[in-house]
Amino acid sequence: MTARHKRVMQIAAGRGTTWHTDDVSVEEPLEIRVGGVSLSVTMRTPGDDFDLAAGFLITEGIVRGAGEIEAMRMCPDASAETGELNVVEVSLSKSAASRAISPRAFYMTSSCGICGKASIDAVRTTSPYDVHDDPLSMTSDVLVGLPDVQRAAQREFSRTGGLHAAALFDAAGTLRCVREDVGRHNAFDKVIGWAATRGLLPLRSHVILASGRASFELTQKTLMAGIPMLAAVSAPSSLAIELAETSGMTLIGFLRGEQMNVYTGFERVVRA
Amino acid sequence: MTARHKRVMQIAAGRGTTWHTDDVSVEEPLEIRVGGVSLSVTMRTPGDDFDLAAGFLITEGIVRGAGEIEAMRMCPDASAETGELNVVEVSLSKSAASRAISPRAFYMTSSCGICGKASIDAVRTTSPYDVHDDPLSMTSDVLVGLPDVQRAAQREFSRTGGLHAAALFDAAGTLRCVREDVGRHNAFDKVIGWAATRGLLPLRSHVILASGRASFELTQKTLMAGIPMLAAVSAPSSLAIELAETSGMTLIGFLRGEQMNVYTGFERVVRA
Repeated sequence: MTARHKRVMQIAAGRGTTWHTDDVSVEEPLEIRVGGVSLSVTMRTPGDDFDLAAGFLITEGIVRGAGEIEAMRMCPDASAETGELNVVEVSLSKSAASRAISPRAFYMTSSCGICGKASIDAVRTTSPYDVHDDPLSMTSDVLVGLPDVQRAAQREFSRTGGLHAAALFDAAGTLRCVREDVGRHNAFDKVIGWAATRGLLPLRSHVILASGRASFELTQKTLMAGIPMLAAVSAPSSLAIELAETSGMTLIGFLRGEQMNVYTGFERVVRA
Repeated sequence: MTARHKRVMQIAAGRGTTWHTDDVSVEEPLEIRVGGVSLSVTMRTPGDDFDLAAGFLITEGIVRGAGEIEAMRMCPDASAETGELNVVEVSLSKSAASRAISPRAFYMTSSCGICGKASIDAVRTTSPYDVHDDPLSMTSDVLVGLPDVQRAAQREFSRTGGLHAAALFDAAGTLRCVREDVGRHNAFDKVIGWAATRGLLPLRSHVILASGRASFELTQKTLMAGIPMLAAVSAPSSLAIELAETSGMTLIGFLRGEQMNVYTGFERVVRA
């Protein structure tokens, strides 16, 4: 369930005070356990929780691919307060389980991504994929049309106004997958987990679109999935640009209306 | 430095391709060390780093007030890549240092808040303040004017388009403090740290305004500072409403134009 009804007192100039029942985006903690050990809590919108867990494990570099995930199941103990199922238990393959998982604890809020790294050096993960030579080429005409496709595919935004989205497109601009969440990092993990569990990584010659800003974290997740192009409706940060630059990724910001800003990887955007 | 220059290729319908130099919001990691031990890395916009560290330690419940912080200093080793100073070293009072700091590591992205909690039970912090009986009362006229005051006070937003803001107002609607950051949780911590280091906690009869959405995390930080009212320009999440409700806090969402939605603590909003 992605929306929950809440009573709301609305005050508007000229219309006085009215009472409504509003749909609000659900935010609930999801605990990810690996081999019985709690690894992470993320504040997420329930739904596609297995994709979220798989995407998280991959973009965090804890597994090298979905093939290292043997099984996932929801722990049947529902939250006493809300009735939601909030714990995913993951079993890894022997090879993955035998690698030491560093004893870091992850807690992610609804707007947070990777957690548990206590020193600056540990912030960067290393992608198994290199996007420098990815031959993706997209026309500006196709690119400026992507946000509309994303919004049309969002089932929740118009209802609650409170969800971030991530959308994956192929080189022709065809929508492959769209996911929403109160946390933008979760929306990315859900899309990447969806692809990973279908054997689609690396996502060569694809573009992933963020409904908001482009942070370092989202750029890193994009790289961990082997995606050569990240486009964002809003602004990129300095570190997002710097990571995209050194990684050979194309980074587009302010993709709205009929225009865009290209910050890195200019050669993949063809004026049309 | 909150903005950095980046080269950008702009493609706009009817205007072709042009090249600019753009100001983008700086995102850099800040490592917070307590007693020589690394506690947290947050992705933040440099500036007001001592306020950020103090606010983080307080809203995380690691210290009970600014009086438990004996000293803070920037580690003089600048980042080799960017020249930024990215490590704050904090010394705690004996009483605070003698309390066990739970061995959790925190890593926060630019949109993330509290990190390092590995089980759902650990997600909630306990506030030393109770806002149930706070006598704050604000008129809807004053409230609808706050976003304009916040935007006028933001020095960065118009330039980079990439920063979240938090603003603190008193009961008369007078701006006390505004802070910006690539991470919305950091903007809150900077405001709360500003107040804490001036001996202003709890912030009774104040309201804190978020430029975006109201999450569980921001609601919790508001409560940890003893603030009885959280207003957000955008949507609240279900868990934000539920925490505000049980805490006796007033939660306002969609505060834009001439209207607002009040989700909890209705009695503090007076129609004018």
